[in-house]
Formats: sequence, C-alpha cells, structure tokens
Amino acid sequence: MSQDERVEDLQVTDEMPWAEVNPDAARRLLVAAVEAFAERGYHATTTRDIASRAGMSPAALYIHYKTKEELLLRISRIGHEKALRILRHAVEAEGTAADRLTEAVRCFVRWHAGHHTTARVVQYELESLGEDHRPVIMDLRRQSDAAVREIIDDGVKAGEFDVPDEPGTTVAILSLCIDVARWFNPQGRRTPDEVGAFYADLVLRMVGARAPR
Amino acid sequence: MSQDERVEDLQVTDEMPWAEVNPDAARRLLVAAVEAFAERGYHATTTRDIASRAGMSPAALYIHYKTKEELLLRISRIGHEKALRILRHAVEAEGTAADRLTEAVRCFVRWHAGHHTTARVVQYELESLGEDHRPVIMDLRRQSDAAVREIIDDGVKAGEFDVPDEPGTTVAILSLCIDVARWFNPQGRRTPDEVGAFYADLVLRMVGARAPR
Repeated sequence: MSQDERVEDLQVTDEMPWAEVNPDAARRLLVAAVEAFAERGYHATTTRDIASRAGMSPAALYIHYKTKEELLLRISRIGHEKALRILRHAVEAEGTAADRLTEAVRCFVRWHAGHHTTARVVQYELESLGEDHRPVIMDLRRQSDAAVREIIDDGVKAGEFDVPDEPGTTVAILSLCIDVARWFNPQGRRTPDEVGAFYADLVLRMVGARAPR
Repeated sequence: MSQDERVEDLQVTDEMPWAEVNPDAARRLLVAAVEAFAERGYHATTTRDIASRAGMSPAALYIHYKTKEELLLRISRIGHEKALRILRHAVEAEGTAADRLTEAVRCFVRWHAGHHTTARVVQYELESLGEDHRPVIMDLRRQSDAAVREIIDDGVKAGEFDVPDEPGTTVAILSLCIDVARWFNPQGRRTPDEVGAFYADLVLRMVGARAPR
C-alpha cells in the first residue's frame, strides 16, 4: 500500500466511523451504545436502553451482541485500534522525527476532538471492562505508547530532541492529546484541525525539538 | 496571613480531604458518594447505595443532603475550590513567572494525582450537574483558567516566556495537569510529588521559558 493510499484510507475511516461494523443493524446498535454510555455512563445503561435508542427490540440486540460488555469491548477495541493506526502511520511516515511527531500529534488530536464522544467512552469506561477483556485493550495501549516512544527515541538519537525522561514524556504527550476529548467543544473557537496543529507545536516544545544535526 | 501560614494551610487541606464538611455524618456520606460515583458513575448510583456505603439509613442521608445532585454539587464545588486555591496561591507567591508557574503546576498535579478518585468524579460528572448548578462550577473553572493565564501573561511581559497563543496554552497546561487524574496509579513508579516536579519542567518548555531579562 502506498503512503497516499494509506492517508486516504485513514481519512475515509475518519469520516465514516464504525464503517467496519456490519451489518447495518450491528452498527446502529454500536452508535446507540456510544451515545447512551456517554450520556449516562456504562453502568446506568441497559441493553433495553440501547436497543430502544437504535429503534430495535431487545431481542434484535441479542442477535448481534450477547452482553452489554460485548458492546463496550467492541467500541473500545475499534477506538483503540484506530488510535494505534494513526500513530503507527506517523511512525512509518517519511521525514525527520519532528515531522513524524507533528503528524502523530496532529492526527491523534484531530481524532480525539472530532470523535470526542467515542473517545470519552473509550477512555473513561476502561475499568468497566471485565478482567477477561481488559488485557486486549491494555495491549493496544502499550502499542500506542511504543509508537510515540519510537519517534521520540529516533529524535533523541538523531540529536533532534532533548528529552531527559523518555517514558514520562511519552505518557505526558499521549495524555495531553487524549484529554482533548474531555474539553473539546464543537461549538468552540477552534476546529479539530486547528487544535491538532497547535498541539503539535506544543509537543515539539516539550521534546526540545531543534533542527536536525 | 504570611506565606508560610498559607503553605501550611494548603498542606493540611491536602492531607485531610473534606475536613471542611461537618458534621462527621455529612463527611462520611460525601466520601461514600465519591467512591460510588467513581466506581459506577453518577447515574448508576442511588442515594440508597451511598447511605449503605456510609453505614447509614436513607433517612439519615436526607437529613444532610436533599438530593443526589446536592452531593455531586458539594463534591464538585469543594474540588474546584481547592484547585483554585492552589492556583491562586501560586499566582500570589514571590519569585519570577517561571517560579510561580512551577509552583502552580507542581501543586495542581500533586493534588490531581493524590486525589485522583475525587478529581475524576469532579471532572467527568460535570454534565450530570443540573442547569441551575453548573454555572457555579463554570465560574470557578474560569477563575482557575484566569489564574494560570495571569502567570503566563506576567512571564510574557517580563520577556521570560515565549507564548504565541496565551489562551490556547493556558487550556493545554490545565488539561495536561487534570488528565493526571485519569492515568495516575498509586502503585506506579512515580509519586504525586515526582509527577508534579516532572510536569513543571514540561510546562516550562511549553511556555518557552528562559532566564528573565
């Protein structure tokens, strides 16, 4: 797959969330679950609430999802896989470490701003996942962490970045970007693109970026 | 009140959360509400759950709090007032803008790490507050924002900081610090103090701090 194809692919996914969920009824239920979990929290939401929001019967829901937790896992997994795909895409891009870190932050923030409702559910309901399923998500999170860490490490090795504490800085950068989902307001002054570009500059400052030697 | 007295005062409050809530039964109910809201979310928690966690009857709860929302408002208000007090304390401290920003970030992060359960409830359940009560909290948030903004503005005017976008940088700094409550793990490698000190350095980078001219 060429880089152009990958970029296009990412954009399509950006505009058509849950496109990978089929059939249509399963997708509608997932969208309804995201809304219900975001509004009232996972524990206050029943499968009956979700089915009713999707205009379906509880019996129809059970055809697609056996439990409420299966819905949360599916949402969480798709959300985390998208985040990882965005970050891996930046790791594999051409350019200096600063270029790649800019790309990572710009796209990761844009996703968290543009999909803030999903992102909140994904981030705040992690502990509602059962012990059986949490490891799947924790593994995706470790991979996202490793992707950012890899760019930082490249930058330090190339003399582009000055980072005294690489693991701590990696956590802080991801944390700064994720929290956009908490405060972002679509009626606010900035678009997801603008926040992404601004945050990329802030993150370059955090890693002490300078021209490559 | 001397600066030493103020520092001591802040530390006492840090170690005795909810000390301002009296009588003892009202405080026990508040602590129980924080735990319940953090575990299951505001909407999934009943006043009966809260009373039972506190080892009290629902009737005993109603002596102190008329509604579940009154408990959330009390928690949110105390949490936001503490955050504001920490930030105002730093604004009014002696020293350069960099010294005061360091103090603000160090203490604000320490509070969010040390009281991460309360901080999560305070931050994630804002929208569960009714229309009547949300403005009280929004006003406290604007004041916290203004406190950080004041230090940044002082630093820019003194030629200590290089900040192209003061409102955006203020939001980002507060956001970075608040999100510590999401990821902080008391069993992790870093203490609240260590995260606070590390974050203060990162924030000085974000504002492009240099020696005062």
